[in-house]
Amino acid sequence: MTAAHTTPAAPDPTPAPAVPTPVSVLGLGAMGSAIARAFLAAGHRTTVWNRTASRRTPLVEVGAAEAGSAAEAAAASPLVVVCVLDRAAVDEVLASVDTAIAGKTLVNLTSGSPAQARSYARWARERGAEYLDGKIMGDPPYVGTPQVMFPFSGSADAFAEHEAVLRELGTVAYHGADAGAAAVEFMAQVATSYELLIGFLHTLRLVAAEGSDVSAFAERFGASLAVFPTLLNSMAHAVATGAYGPDLGSLNVQAALMDDLIGHRESVGVEAVRMREVKELMDRRIKDGHGDQGFSSLFELLAPRA
Amino acid sequence: MTAAHTTPAAPDPTPAPAVPTPVSVLGLGAMGSAIARAFLAAGHRTTVWNRTASRRTPLVEVGAAEAGSAAEAAAASPLVVVCVLDRAAVDEVLASVDTAIAGKTLVNLTSGSPAQARSYARWARERGAEYLDGKIMGDPPYVGTPQVMFPFSGSADAFAEHEAVLRELGTVAYHGADAGAAAVEFMAQVATSYELLIGFLHTLRLVAAEGSDVSAFAERFGASLAVFPTLLNSMAHAVATGAYGPDLGSLNVQAALMDDLIGHRESVGVEAVRMREVKELMDRRIKDGHGDQGFSSLFELLAPRA
Ligand SMILES: NC(=O)c1ccc[n+]([C@@H]2O[C@H](COP(=O)([O-])OP(=O)(O)OC[C@H]3O[C@@H](n4cnc5c(N)ncnc54)[C@H](OP(=O)(O)O)[C@@H]3O)[C@@H](O)[C@H]2O)c1
Ligand SMILES: NC(=O)c1ccc[n+]([C@@H]2O[C@H](COP(=O)([O-])OP(=O)(O)OC[C@H]3O[C@@H](n4cnc5c(N)ncnc54)[C@H](OP(=O)(O)O)[C@@H]3O)[C@@H](O)[C@H]2O)c1
Repeated sequence: MTAAHTTPAAPDPTPAPAVPTPVSVLGLGAMGSAIARAFLAAGHRTTVWNRTASRRTPLVEVGAAEAGSAAEAAAASPLVVVCVLDRAAVDEVLASVDTAIAGKTLVNLTSGSPAQARSYARWARERGAEYLDGKIMGDPPYVGTPQVMFPFSGSADAFAEHEAVLRELGTVAYHGADAGAAAVEFMAQVATSYELLIGFLHTLRLVAAEGSDVSAFAERFGASLAVFPTLLNSMAHAVATGAYGPDLGSLNVQAALMDDLIGHRESVGVEAVRMREVKELMDRRIKDGHGDQGFSSLFELLAPRA
Repeated sequence: MTAAHTTPAAPDPTPAPAVPTPVSVLGLGAMGSAIARAFLAAGHRTTVWNRTASRRTPLVEVGAAEAGSAAEAAAASPLVVVCVLDRAAVDEVLASVDTAIAGKTLVNLTSGSPAQARSYARWARERGAEYLDGKIMGDPPYVGTPQVMFPFSGSADAFAEHEAVLRELGTVAYHGADAGAAAVEFMAQVATSYELLIGFLHTLRLVAAEGSDVSAFAERFGASLAVFPTLLNSMAHAVATGAYGPDLGSLNVQAALMDDLIGHRESVGVEAVRMREVKELMDRRIKDGHGDQGFSSLFELLAPRA
């Protein structure tokens, strides 16, 4: 995986328009429908299929061709996009597509694990199809704008062939030939986002319990986030090199605050699971003689060990 | 607490220069020294004291007056700033200052809890002093620039009198007359930051275990943070009003992913404490008939109950 491959394609001020390419979309939930609309808006002949037939109608009304079965939809286009709920749904759809995928490029945009992506890549190969795994980071209303990020991985040839068409969905990045790589990126991004967001919700309980305005706090914390891209980069650099500076101050100074922080949360009935973990990790680093290092050095104590 | 009081003072393109005010700084660790330097740079007569005398010397070399005791330092100026390690250190310093604080404004910039701040306010009142509690969000090298945020609370008169001088340390905001309010803000901001950062470190373990480049991931996740200020505002609004839209998608769709996410983390030996909690909360909301709502609705299940 080279840097060029993991960096989103640079926004091209005058991107070459994609050659109109017949494309089929299987799965017309909130996300699949938004994808089909984006392809239609970009002028591609778009064939749609959804298990519940009534969800096809709004797409047909804006110009999509309707397929009566998943296999029929797959047969209609060289580029076959699947976006359904989960692994069980993909399995059911692919079972009914089966050999109709031969000679096509299958693009699976359903959320799921790296292992699932790799198994779909095998499934496609066995049927003479190319496979691209894609994951979606963003909301359906923004599909078709650069705000929605699509990490892709799998067949490099298929990505090169269809990149221009896929770019019409949002900001795309190619993460390499391992079909699981896009899912790794997705799982890592989603988890880090959830860590922030569940911590934020717990802390809103604290803010509310103290009689402060939750909206005003959100505004201020959102503004504080401006420093995080730089901080995360320097923390990742410390992790990569093992050269841990005193980021966020030394652990000696940070640890001195943690009992107050935990005690305050407990005094208003707000959970402190992560804060206790952070304190314990800080104490262990200090005990090991690393109290002059910073927060990023806690990485050394996290499983799996190097 | 009005909105005007909780919003950082708007950056004034031509701020009125602070009237030179004698100021004393008690505590010359990394942070106290940076504070003393910022006051000196702004042209204030600055008296310094530190328990370990050798730490006074570099400040004296750049123009500070040296006090031989904490009480002598407090007596030297109408504005007395304390910035030491923790509550135990503040207690020790204040015990030796005692009645030398009469008629002064005491500004405590040491990290600590709202309850501690309120007890220092009482201590000052009993000795005929005004009290301001301040907390510091930022690193010592940036003190004196707008990048460092200083929430203040306590005496409104003292804040009005000394705001211009305090602004020379960074971006200041007044959170109200309750001396504990700045500490509430600080505890909430620090905890939410640690939630993000410890989650980030755990996920770097996953990224590394999967053979991906941690620095490249940090770069991409940092870029993804651009959408969070808007997201946090809309989540806080949902929490404040109880009108929970499907933020990040419906819980039905989000929950379908969580087992894969947890299973993937466990398969590479990375902890999933928060991810399991999120899944459990999502399942409970779905069972309660709220599967069409979004992530912010999990707030309803977090203690303390409304
Ligand atoms: N919505 C978002 O904000 C968002 C954001 C990022 C990623 N995603 C991902 O996008 C994917 C689709 O999400 P969505 O929002 O479109 O979900 P959705 O609105 O709930 O739609 C689910 C889709 O899956 C289909 N489906 C479910 N089980 C099936 C089965 N056994 N066989 C065939 N089709 C089946 C449904 O068909 P029926 O109509 O017949 O039930 C429907 O088309 C998910 O993997 C999700 O994680 C969504
Ligand atoms: N450094 C940061 O990045 C940062 C960021 C935000 C907030 N803060 C806060 O700023 C405060 C000071 O931090 P710092 O970085 O300056 O810490 P530091 O470099 O470790 O210095 C600690 C200071 O506290 C003094 N002290 C400790 N115990 C004492 C006692 N019993 N009596 C008198 N003085 C005592 C020390 O005096 P001696 O020299 O005699 O030991 C020294 O002046 C802390 O509350 C910290 O949380 C720091």
